[in-house]
Amino acid sequence: MPSTMPHTLSVLPVDRCIDASREAWIDRFRSVRAHSMALVAPLSAEDQTVQSMPDASPAKWHLAHTTWFFEAVVLHRLQAGYQPFDEAFFFLFNSYYEALGPRHERHQRGLLTRPGVAEVHLYRAHVDAAMVRCIARCDAATWAELMPILELGLHHEQQHQELLVTDILHAFSCNPMLPAYRPSTRTDRPPSPDDATGAARWIAFDGGIEDIGHDAPAGRAPAAGHPDFAFDNETPRHRVLLAPYRLADRLVTCGEYARFVADGGYREPRFWLSDGWALVRAQGWTAPAYWVAPDDPRIALSARPRAEGWQVFGEHGLLPLDEDAPVRQLSLYEAAAYAEWAGARLPTEFEWEAASSHPGMRQLHGHVWQWTRSSYDPYPGFRPMQGVAAEYNGKFMVGQVVLRGSSSATPDGHARSTYRNFFPPAARWQFTGLRLAKDAA
Amino acid sequence: MPSTMPHTLSVLPVDRCIDASREAWIDRFRSVRAHSMALVAPLSAEDQTVQSMPDASPAKWHLAHTTWFFEAVVLHRLQAGYQPFDEAFFFLFNSYYEALGPRHERHQRGLLTRPGVAEVHLYRAHVDAAMVRCIARCDAATWAELMPILELGLHHEQQHQELLVTDILHAFSCNPMLPAYRPSTRTDRPPSPDDATGAARWIAFDGGIEDIGHDAPAGRAPAAGHPDFAFDNETPRHRVLLAPYRLADRLVTCGEYARFVADGGYREPRFWLSDGWALVRAQGWTAPAYWVAPDDPRIALSARPRAEGWQVFGEHGLLPLDEDAPVRQLSLYEAAAYAEWAGARLPTEFEWEAASSHPGMRQLHGHVWQWTRSSYDPYPGFRPMQGVAAEYNGKFMVGQVVLRGSSSATPDGHARSTYRNFFPPAARWQFTGLRLAKDAA
Amino acid sequence: MPSTMPHTLSVLPVDRCIDASREAWIDRFRSVRAHSMALVAPLSAEDQTVQSMPDASPAKWHLAHTTWFFEAVVLHRLQAGYQPFDEAFFFLFNSYYEALGPRHERHQRGLLTRPGVAEVHLYRAHVDAAMVRCIARCDAATWAELMPILELGLHHEQQHQELLVTDILHAFSCNPMLPAYRPSTRTDRPPSPDDATGAARWIAFDGGIEDIGHDAPAGRAPAAGHPDFAFDNETPRHRVLLAPYRLADRLVTCGEYARFVADGGYREPRFWLSDGWALVRAQGWTAPAYWVAPDDPRIALSARPRAEGWQVFGEHGLLPLDEDAPVRQLSLYEAAAYAEWAGARLPTEFEWEAASSHPGMRQLHGHVWQWTRSSYDPYPGFRPMQGVAAEYNGKFMVGQVVLRGSSSATPDGHARSTYRNFFPPAARWQFTGLRLAKDAA
Amino acid sequence: MPSTMPHTLSVLPVDRCIDASREAWIDRFRSVRAHSMALVAPLSAEDQTVQSMPDASPAKWHLAHTTWFFEAVVLHRLQAGYQPFDEAFFFLFNSYYEALGPRHERHQRGLLTRPGVAEVHLYRAHVDAAMVRCIARCDAATWAELMPILELGLHHEQQHQELLVTDILHAFSCNPMLPAYRPSTRTDRPPSPDDATGAARWIAFDGGIEDIGHDAPAGRAPAAGHPDFAFDNETPRHRVLLAPYRLADRLVTCGEYARFVADGGYREPRFWLSDGWALVRAQGWTAPAYWVAPDDPRIALSARPRAEGWQVFGEHGLLPLDEDAPVRQLSLYEAAAYAEWAGARLPTEFEWEAASSHPGMRQLHGHVWQWTRSSYDPYPGFRPMQGVAAEYNGKFMVGQVVLRGSSSATPDGHARSTYRNFFPPAARWQFTGLRLAKDAA
Repeated sequence: MPSTMPHTLSVLPVDRCIDASREAWIDRFRSVRAHSMALVAPLSAEDQTVQSMPDASPAKWHLAHTTWFFEAVVLHRLQAGYQPFDEAFFFLFNSYYEALGPRHERHQRGLLTRPGVAEVHLYRAHVDAAMVRCIARCDAATWAELMPILELGLHHEQQHQELLVTDILHAFSCNPMLPAYRPSTRTDRPPSPDDATGAARWIAFDGGIEDIGHDAPAGRAPAAGHPDFAFDNETPRHRVLLAPYRLADRLVTCGEYARFVADGGYREPRFWLSDGWALVRAQGWTAPAYWVAPDDPRIALSARPRAEGWQVFGEHGLLPLDEDAPVRQLSLYEAAAYAEWAGARLPTEFEWEAASSHPGMRQLHGHVWQWTRSSYDPYPGFRPMQGVAAEYNGKFMVGQVVLRGSSSATPDGHARSTYRNFFPPAARWQFTGLRLAKDAA
Repeated sequence: MPSTMPHTLSVLPVDRCIDASREAWIDRFRSVRAHSMALVAPLSAEDQTVQSMPDASPAKWHLAHTTWFFEAVVLHRLQAGYQPFDEAFFFLFNSYYEALGPRHERHQRGLLTRPGVAEVHLYRAHVDAAMVRCIARCDAATWAELMPILELGLHHEQQHQELLVTDILHAFSCNPMLPAYRPSTRTDRPPSPDDATGAARWIAFDGGIEDIGHDAPAGRAPAAGHPDFAFDNETPRHRVLLAPYRLADRLVTCGEYARFVADGGYREPRFWLSDGWALVRAQGWTAPAYWVAPDDPRIALSARPRAEGWQVFGEHGLLPLDEDAPVRQLSLYEAAAYAEWAGARLPTEFEWEAASSHPGMRQLHGHVWQWTRSSYDPYPGFRPMQGVAAEYNGKFMVGQVVLRGSSSATPDGHARSTYRNFFPPAARWQFTGLRLAKDAA
Repeated sequence: MPSTMPHTLSVLPVDRCIDASREAWIDRFRSVRAHSMALVAPLSAEDQTVQSMPDASPAKWHLAHTTWFFEAVVLHRLQAGYQPFDEAFFFLFNSYYEALGPRHERHQRGLLTRPGVAEVHLYRAHVDAAMVRCIARCDAATWAELMPILELGLHHEQQHQELLVTDILHAFSCNPMLPAYRPSTRTDRPPSPDDATGAARWIAFDGGIEDIGHDAPAGRAPAAGHPDFAFDNETPRHRVLLAPYRLADRLVTCGEYARFVADGGYREPRFWLSDGWALVRAQGWTAPAYWVAPDDPRIALSARPRAEGWQVFGEHGLLPLDEDAPVRQLSLYEAAAYAEWAGARLPTEFEWEAASSHPGMRQLHGHVWQWTRSSYDPYPGFRPMQGVAAEYNGKFMVGQVVLRGSSSATPDGHARSTYRNFFPPAARWQFTGLRLAKDAA
Repeated sequence: MPSTMPHTLSVLPVDRCIDASREAWIDRFRSVRAHSMALVAPLSAEDQTVQSMPDASPAKWHLAHTTWFFEAVVLHRLQAGYQPFDEAFFFLFNSYYEALGPRHERHQRGLLTRPGVAEVHLYRAHVDAAMVRCIARCDAATWAELMPILELGLHHEQQHQELLVTDILHAFSCNPMLPAYRPSTRTDRPPSPDDATGAARWIAFDGGIEDIGHDAPAGRAPAAGHPDFAFDNETPRHRVLLAPYRLADRLVTCGEYARFVADGGYREPRFWLSDGWALVRAQGWTAPAYWVAPDDPRIALSARPRAEGWQVFGEHGLLPLDEDAPVRQLSLYEAAAYAEWAGARLPTEFEWEAASSHPGMRQLHGHVWQWTRSSYDPYPGFRPMQGVAAEYNGKFMVGQVVLRGSSSATPDGHARSTYRNFFPPAARWQFTGLRLAKDAA
């Protein structure tokens, strides 16, 4: 059903004498944009419409907002004579860019039944065609200005691709039938050495002065077409002094976490940060967000067989807990409480980054984002991106906690060792897990 | 698109020797059921999914819940061997019947993207087929038991038909583009003497002892196949002593109400009941719920021309205020404040009913429900319906206010002079308006 | 401690040639005002300061607000040259009179530590002296205007005297030590025939046309110096047609109610109005508001011996449940659920009033206010009092339920058979109980 | 009135042969305890009772809770045969120590009218006497265990002394008459070079590796009787690598901040962190918390003359804005927005501490706590204090921001350069201000 857009793109009359570099950009643009459409392929129009909590957004909104970015920030500003698809969309699909005018209230995104899914697909096709045309044909001066925003827009869309998946899982988790986003239970990635999950081993690091962050030229992030792009919050690269420390070579597993739960971890305040314990009691937390106990009435509605132990809700619906899989859908509070119970602690983001080049470190990427014990503060000398993009990262730098790594939902090519993801410490609906750390023995 | 169901019904092999009375019931059943489907014809799957506030329900939910009524209350209990469409639906689509088991939380109805619209249509077809078969073929004892519930179920569905319209309008009112439910601006009903809207005239009534309520046999409401059905809350018929009074022969119009607004009606506490004035201030009310001021930013998004004065949102989208149309989308507080400003008052529900047979009374039905100054209390000798239906009306008899008449969204054949509609005094999203009353001169 | 005020009053040089009627008014004024001071005698300054919920007010505020009434409505408007005690008090101690200017937010009354208790006592003394002087000496025209407001002001203060007691009990109920307002356990009233609590008997009434309400001259309520004063909401006297009915001759007792509790009354939705059942679940109600279960941790803090069964918190602190005492601190929902469980119903306010002259009726007054099944609607022909007092009752006439009778906290001389008390159906902190009714056998 | 306690202490029969060191401890204990009583001297019983928001506590509660610390953590655990003043107080006056049992809900502290102020004073006298006796006479082993807790208890009480002042100011700020805590307008400290407030000068620092934190022996903080005590959150001392930076030699003044306000600082989102801007709009912030605009209706109630410009509420009531005084009662959001507007930034807590020994730095202590741009994270190698005190600091280390320096309300001897105060970024009722920083030129 949602296949109109790629088709439209494929027949676009791209100028023959386009230079090779721009052609590569067009390929990349098409590829990223097509991935968003692929993500909604399993979803009905109904699925794409709802917003299950203020922090989540409808899938349809993600499709439209990432398109708005190219229309409002690129085409509307840099392409003379551009005809907007619908003037109202500038208002409807702005997320939080104050400089780009007023916008629809975030918590009301789920009430926008119109434009519908089909119209959003047309919107994407319209903007895609205009973008491809613009990339192919704009003059050199425009291209110089456009390229960094294009780059940013693609990384922006990749971020929303992961959010689209986490948000639709949250919506499905609110349905007592616990439907599956991807009904097949086949995992997406074949087994690999990275999945090995024997006993964790401690890898020791000497600490000392380490270079942290990305070396994008100061004040010019994100670098246009830079071989490895970075967001402004990863810059500037700077030196940090670390004490000796140890990191676990792999992630904490569901089996390990289940022992914490069974040991009364959610009933014992001494493991918990104060705000976390308040949430445990107020929300009745007894396990990670998507764990389903054997006596949960939703099991009867879910067409799943009743099981002895925990089941876990995820992309493939409800499945028995996999002892070896990394635990996920955890708040920072739960991650820190587990670490305390285990006689360890969470790593700082600097420890994580410095250790990431060690060959013995496993499961750094592609499983779950890993909570660190670092609040999301600006790096020394931090300067936000210029212009519209100034609002991209800096204004969120308080009250949040840094996560490192990447998850199974992170698009290929989006992750890197300097990447700083961030969420409030109470967030549980992301693909978040943990890796243990300790001071040097 | 949603035409599968009637088709399915039309080819059902109804037994040839069915008695005429049952055939009439089947016709009526099909007719009522088809009307629900007609109401969602203008709606996309997205439109049918959302719940714009806890008091409203998704259109899809209305379709499913009215079907649930026939499945859970009729087929599941009276039809041996009935195969439910999906066991989970017993949980998902129960509204508030405690006796019928646990149910999905009301405020989370809008998160149920699955079952989708198509599956709900299949659910309707499945239940419709089984109902028709059951009506046609069940034995006499079953039929005697079934008929009153069938009757109730049809009136129940008609109630939800009106709610479906008011709820979708509320959802659209939350969309800053203010889309139209029925894009045509042609009104549904041709002009009639009933619409005459010259100056209102006062009609005087002597009062005295009046019979109020419906004469359904005591303790047996709703009467099975009774020529004019009534809900239990309209019974028993009883005598009420009224003082002399006067009623306006027609409803208060938008033009009249606009003068109240222009006169500072929403800025002057003396017109208001205390709770109403608190809402005026807390919610910033300045006019009825769907009135849109000339400087409202939504006008730019709505593709409507900018206008000098008020515009009003409704089934046909945004239209200029019609001076002669009955004012609507009013809370009881606003109705009572207007009456106070106008030197009049609202009628009691008894005055309204006693006056309703007077030939001079106009606009009693088919325009707007009319707020009365009667709280929704039980009639003397009131007994709820028996069995499951006991929860139908009685348990809501506190904190609500009675409305009389019927609206343009009330299905044909559903209204009657003894009908007691009721809503909390703050409700604004229904087709609610007012008629003035006074004590005898 | 708070004895300064009466002293001050007793030495006021009241003119010798004052006429006897005014002297009687002065005596009555002094008597009512002194009773308020007597009520706070057991309270510390701290006790008098707090507001335990938005619906309650500090004792100190009751003392000041009732004084404000005389200052703002009488002295400031009718006494030339009157010097206000403190101009700020006009703002601080207005309750809800929009016509008398802005006012301090209701829910913030408990933050006013200043003026302190001592200053409020001085305020009372200042206004008392001015009032006595004014009553004694004002000219005849002023007196004619003043007298009805004075009368209203005294009844107003009596209403607040009961609220003062209920509000301080609520504040104490929030203290885990459950302190006693009046430490002695001696009951205030000696045993009387009215307390007899054998099995309740049903008294039958024929119904028919009954005169209901107070006969204060239409449009002139409250009558100045009328032998029996009435609030406007009790007028006009009018005729009501009643069906035959029966009333219990006494109130429902704690012992009877405890059987409802033990029988699962709070676990069975079928007894409950819908909003009531929602509260039972949301608030975890398991018994009347001030009943304390044997395992309640507050018992250890309260210096009360641990007991086998329920204990009940009240004026004298925590005491074992008295089987024969009328049950109280009940919401309308609980009263109606009990009646449903008992196979009876609540009376209407008209049934109650018509029955109140029957010699067999016991416990009509002086125990608890009795929930009726009548919403608080205006009587036919109702006109609010004129002027400032117009806001006294009428603007609250929606969403509330009528209570009849009076309680042990109602000041002597304040109760009458036509009195209409009213509270929202969820209110539990008043001295509220119930009497059963039934239709004629 | 509140002088009973010191008297009681002064006549305690302290053993003659007490060693000099313990005598010094007793003097210090008495001195700290007496200061708390001095702080409540200007307050009435009413003032000491209220809780104006969940984050604040009643003055009376501060008096009792600091006493509870000595009773529950010292006497009850270390003094054989100790008779508690009232067993209920263990429950009532625990703040947040999960290990010490259940406790009264924080947000309900303002409902505890009993124990009253007088009883709390007796409680203090009882515990003071027992503490002095215990310090003087306990055996050496007990003393070794007791001394570190005694030290902690005194610093704990000093922290509450500042909170007592900030909380009572908040309570008074909720009173529309804006009463004065200390009516005299005389400032508490004489003018000093530290107050000099000409143009701020930038002082440059080279950065490099700096020692940060307190050198209390690892794992043994707080050191018993250590010459300079530290809380666990200041340890361990560790090395941090800083880039070159500049700090303003003095604090930002009210005059400077008023220019930010006049320049539209509160209307321009680009200066603000995202959460801060949301609060500006939701709460209607237009200036620091206690600034009062010329048209504020509270001025008429406050007995202050109407003024042309801003007035500021504080200890001495409402006073005209002092251009040269450090601005205060600011959230982190406002501090950061000001810095952005001024083309500067906030310092990190490490920059602040490293700079604090520079002789040119002024106003480091005794004016306002200074917001840093450092989230409150644990230091590398951080270990909480042992035993009960483990809950003292560590469990709050997320979602808060570090403040450095000290304020005019900080007790003498409590401040030091390594001190880490912390509050949520939205907190506005503390004595919080800011000092600007910049990267090296």
